[in-house]
Amino acid sequence: MSSTPAYDQLAAASQRLYHFGHLASIARWDQETNMPPGGNEARGAALAELAALMHRLRTEPGLGDAIARAEQESLDDVQRANLREIRREWQQSTALPEALVQARTLAASRCEHAWRAQRQANDWKGFLANFRDVMRLAREEAELLSQLQGVSKYEALMDRFEPGMTCAEVDRVFGDLKAWLPGLVRQAQERQGRETTAMPIGPFSTERQKALCEHVTRMLGFDFSRGRLDVSTHPFSGGVPEDVRLTTRYRDDDFLQSLMGTIHETGHGRYEQNRPRELLGQPVSEARSMAFHESQSLSFEMQIGRSRGFAGLLAPLLVEAFGAQPAFEPDNLYRLLTRVEPGLIRVDADELTYPAHVILRYEIERALIEGDAEPDDIPALWDEKMLALLGRDTRGDFRDGPLQDVHWPGGAFGYFPCYTLGAMYAAQWFAAIRRQVPDLDERIARGDLAPAFDWLRDNIWLAASRWPVEELALRASGERLNPAHFRAHLERRYLA
Amino acid sequence: MSSTPAYDQLAAASQRLYHFGHLASIARWDQETNMPPGGNEARGAALAELAALMHRLRTEPGLGDAIARAEQESLDDVQRANLREIRREWQQSTALPEALVQARTLAASRCEHAWRAQRQANDWKGFLANFRDVMRLAREEAELLSQLQGVSKYEALMDRFEPGMTCAEVDRVFGDLKAWLPGLVRQAQERQGRETTAMPIGPFSTERQKALCEHVTRMLGFDFSRGRLDVSTHPFSGGVPEDVRLTTRYRDDDFLQSLMGTIHETGHGRYEQNRPRELLGQPVSEARSMAFHESQSLSFEMQIGRSRGFAGLLAPLLVEAFGAQPAFEPDNLYRLLTRVEPGLIRVDADELTYPAHVILRYEIERALIEGDAEPDDIPALWDEKMLALLGRDTRGDFRDGPLQDVHWPGGAFGYFPCYTLGAMYAAQWFAAIRRQVPDLDERIARGDLAPAFDWLRDNIWLAASRWPVEELALRASGERLNPAHFRAHLERRYLA
Repeated sequence: MSSTPAYDQLAAASQRLYHFGHLASIARWDQETNMPPGGNEARGAALAELAALMHRLRTEPGLGDAIARAEQESLDDVQRANLREIRREWQQSTALPEALVQARTLAASRCEHAWRAQRQANDWKGFLANFRDVMRLAREEAELLSQLQGVSKYEALMDRFEPGMTCAEVDRVFGDLKAWLPGLVRQAQERQGRETTAMPIGPFSTERQKALCEHVTRMLGFDFSRGRLDVSTHPFSGGVPEDVRLTTRYRDDDFLQSLMGTIHETGHGRYEQNRPRELLGQPVSEARSMAFHESQSLSFEMQIGRSRGFAGLLAPLLVEAFGAQPAFEPDNLYRLLTRVEPGLIRVDADELTYPAHVILRYEIERALIEGDAEPDDIPALWDEKMLALLGRDTRGDFRDGPLQDVHWPGGAFGYFPCYTLGAMYAAQWFAAIRRQVPDLDERIARGDLAPAFDWLRDNIWLAASRWPVEELALRASGERLNPAHFRAHLERRYLA
Repeated sequence: MSSTPAYDQLAAASQRLYHFGHLASIARWDQETNMPPGGNEARGAALAELAALMHRLRTEPGLGDAIARAEQESLDDVQRANLREIRREWQQSTALPEALVQARTLAASRCEHAWRAQRQANDWKGFLANFRDVMRLAREEAELLSQLQGVSKYEALMDRFEPGMTCAEVDRVFGDLKAWLPGLVRQAQERQGRETTAMPIGPFSTERQKALCEHVTRMLGFDFSRGRLDVSTHPFSGGVPEDVRLTTRYRDDDFLQSLMGTIHETGHGRYEQNRPRELLGQPVSEARSMAFHESQSLSFEMQIGRSRGFAGLLAPLLVEAFGAQPAFEPDNLYRLLTRVEPGLIRVDADELTYPAHVILRYEIERALIEGDAEPDDIPALWDEKMLALLGRDTRGDFRDGPLQDVHWPGGAFGYFPCYTLGAMYAAQWFAAIRRQVPDLDERIARGDLAPAFDWLRDNIWLAASRWPVEELALRASGERLNPAHFRAHLERRYLA
């Protein structure tokens, strides 16, 4: 008989949830890539049924007891880390009354559904009608989680994506960023204003873009025997670690968007493909946090993909795919990959202005959750911050303003910081890699990507959720989150 | 409060199972069409978890009581029919001890997995080692079901696919068939020996075949807003009624196989797409039986798809897709679609020789299940019957002999008769349609397929499982299963 019966019971329960999660992932991937429109309602109902089942399994009576008993069992380090993550998941799942969970899911689903048309129609008023419910329920949830965890309301929501992250920490690193980023953007723009950049001339056939993206994805180490690359309206990385499903979209007038998007998703995908295989099914094998996840996609897209060395690797592939043109000359391609243009849309933003979009959203959503602002205040806050941070006038433009993201209609408050925390972590990882491999850039330029991938695999991917976020950052890079690396990276790329 | 609480409870339970079945269907479809090889193990585990859950839900204590209570409630006709089907499903699910179900699933899965290589290697002995287990467990299952239902052992297995079908009935119609089919095959071959038929000359590009298949599928009324057509190694019709997934496969030296296969699957698909929408989720909305399902695919492929009128519709589409060639001349195309050639492989068989393959399997598997033959006897029985029924010598050729089908390694005893029962029903439906629409063939030749589709929709698709099999046949066509229509159809097509 096992000497850790309670732990084993919990591990078996995790394994079951993992299996059900597999089916949910594949069904959601199919929904975005293959499903004809007429299948939507039935798919939604099937997924809701599975979500309800998984919620019941996560909150089954007796799990709390089993966790308490397992704490007393003789566990090894990995089991103890797994138990920590199991406890965390259990606390998150049982913290909220089922009625609130259902009301929140319904309100978000209604708001998000209507938002798709309201965004097109620039209909802020119509959006507000649904969004007030989403907001009210998010605040209720934040209040309950905040009491339970003894953290602020916004921290309680952020914790779902970034365990242990505090507002003080976000303020520390974003405050740093705000001090130097606007000046850096201005300097980079001035510098780029003096350069001439040849633009790629299309059309670029979907077939060739697809072959190019697959080639580059393979070059970046994605394992196609355990994954795929397909097309969806909104690119994402889904599926399961054993079968990762990346998506992109192709426009025949612009191949760079799909190519760089694919490189970005490949980073997410490799993190998932390289989670510790023998632990799959257990929470300790999950990706550490959403900032860590974004740090992988941004390692691939920003640290590697938009580097001068990688531009040199891409150039001949573009010539092969689309024929020679001035835009594909390596130095020109590098200029294309690092162009700075303050714009209205977060997802289209360049590396340098992206953090401004994130800071704006962080400040507004934090105020909303803490009760320092109301939904009606959003447009004014948005306009003010866009002007201050990016110098753009957005008055009256809700479509490309506060209606542009799915996060708020979907109730995902607390996620936004992860994007820029991830960009910072990515820079921090690459600073650590460079300490070990001083000629990293030359190696990348020669097509030798192994040093970067090996480091990420050993320090991040295989570590999964073995240690708490801050400890993992420390173990991997020798220091906690340090925005100086991000600054140095950006200054080197945009001013040097 | 509801006046039918027990019925409502059962209906809700059916609805839940339907939702889980949706996810299983999509995951299985994905497995055959998209999944990379590395994902197979995790997918298998996830699907097994879901199957175990669904089995628990189907056998939940209290369901039997609820069924008994619902019988006493005041139900309308549709509810009563639904309750009949619910009871039937519950009996089937609870009839077998869980240990037997698991052992059977494992044995079949092991046997089927090994069979794929054993078939290639013509390895009958290796196959037997696993197959004996499959056989033993199938007999155990048949024994239990037979006692429960008071029918013979083979009938008990057949009942899973064709509710209420008896061996006496199969013997009646297959006996009839055996009396005239061999002579008809000979006459048809003699006649065709005097004809000259131009063969299509390839290659036929996958892209054009795909466009052709989609065009024809659309022409046959398949609703692409609630379904798709994709590629898999073994063509099938899967998915859910709200989102039917057809598959085919393309060979560049032969477009007819994929085209006619697609037409076949379209028949299955339209049956599923047109099950009564307001009842989806309830067993009464399920397809009536597997013979009824095959009767739809064969209505599409044989009654319509290989008719002279339809050949006239296809001809210009082939010219458009592949350019003009003598093979595409309508009369020649019709000869291609109706060529008779006794062969070794069931799935490649023509309309006229196909039943011989089915009769052979029926006779052998029935003897196996009833204990009148042992697995070791199969090759001798096979050789003897192939010689008698199709005049082919198959001694020593296990690969294209008893190892050719997935049914036996997978433990699906009792299915085979449904193919030919389906062909008979299809002929019977079209005889009924012709009584209402005497100029049916001229209409089909003009491209007016509505009379056939309308009849099938009103009499078969929308009727779903509203009535028991025999009653539905009677209501639809005015008579129970009558093989005379099949004979008349074949004589008209192959001798007239």
